This record gives sequence, C-alpha cells and structure tokens, in this order.
Amino acid sequence: MKKVINFEEKLNKFNDHWSPKIIAGFNNHDIKLVKVKGEFVLHKHDDTDEVFIVLEGALKIKFKDNIKIINKGEMIVIPHGENHKPFCDKECKILIIEKKNTINTGNNLNALTSPNDIWI
Amino acid sequence: MKKVINFEEKLNKFNDHWSPKIIAGFNNHDIKLVKVKGEFVLHKHDDTDEVFIVLEGALKIKFKDNIKIINKGEMIVIPHGENHKPFCDKECKILIIEKKNTINTGNNLNALTSPNDIWI
Repeated sequence: MKKVINFEEKLNKFNDHWSPKIIAGFNNHDIKLVKVKGEFVLHKHDDTDEVFIVLEGALKIKFKDNIKIINKGEMIVIPHGENHKPFCDKECKILIIEKKNTINTGNNLNALTSPNDIWI
Repeated sequence: MKKVINFEEKLNKFNDHWSPKIIAGFNNHDIKLVKVKGEFVLHKHDDTDEVFIVLEGALKIKFKDNIKIINKGEMIVIPHGENHKPFCDKECKILIIEKKNTINTGNNLNALTSPNDIWI
C-alpha cells in the first residue's frame, strides 16, 4: 500500500487478452488491469458487483436485454448475479474492481478461465 | 446500476473543491468524483482503505514520514487508520473509492467536512 501505481507502466508489462492482473488491493477487493479483444464468454459473479473503467478503446457488454458500450473515460457497474458477455472489435484496456478471489469467467469455467492471483 | 457513467460529464456538474460527489455504488462502497485545490486537513479513516485515482492534475499527499505525488493516470491506496493530508498547487480531478458513508475529513470534523451522500 501507499505505492504510487502508474497504469501505463503496468499495462506495458503484459500483452495477453482476457487475463486480469492485480495491481492493488483495498478493503478485501482487488484492482486489476486487463487487455481485451474479441469475444469473452457469457458469465456472472454471484458474490460480487464488478466495476469496469475503460482506460482505452470501447468495450461492449451484452446483457440479457441490451448491449452497453463503455468508451474511454467511462465506467459501468455490473450487479452481482447478472449475466454479461464482454466483447470488442479493437483492443481495450480496462481497470476492474471486484472482491478478492473473483474468477474472471465467474460461474462459467472454461478455456478462458485464468489464474486470479497474478500481481504485476 | 448498469448505467454507463462518463467522468467528464459528471465533472462538469460541479465546481466546488474538497467536496466529493457520488457517481456509483458497488459492494457497499461508493465511487466518488472530487475537484481539489490548495490544502486539505490532516485526517484518517479508521474503517476504510481509500483509493485515489488521479484523472487530471498532480495530487500530493503528506504522510507522517514522506510526501507522495500522484499524477494523472496514477493511483494510490491509503491504508485505513493512516493519517494523510492531501494538497496540490493547481486544481486536480480525482476518483475516490471507499466504503459507503465515509466522511471526507475522517476523524477530523471541521469546516471542510462535507455531506457524504450527494449523488450527481
């Protein structure tokens, strides 16, 4: 704690997609950075709301009834228990805030499930 | 929830300093925007860690033993219970993440204590 964390410097440390890296912790939550491109899987997190802040690009999220577009400089809160499918055409860089030990694919374990404890 | 929130649009809704406005909630936490300029008071929050993400400007924080400078595109986590005094020369725009019902001046109630439940 109390370290100044630079997003650009941390983003330069990895290039894989859909695999969030932890950069800080607070109040039993993680702050993560992730790069995404293409389609993710439909999933939900029963135990945590999830905050997405878009640092670069335009993230789309498909919900049951509609699609939201979150551009750079914008954020959205995904309520716990709500199915969502993130996707985008071009690479997006995103800050995620969620409870510690949250699995990226939530209830949908599959090939895109990544380790959830990688700090950079 | 599930509303797309644009930081610039929200920041255009107020001009006062050191008075955080809530823009979203998640997991019993608030996400707030604040504009700051000049010196704040030394204070601590015994019940919550506090995340500062600098959206514009350069925020300085004086701790017991040192001063940290957090520039645009950077963040810091202030541990609960730790005295800190934010200050800056030019106006800064900051995103704050902390537990709901957190008072801006923490344990130090004074003229800069602002209402903690104002949504914009």
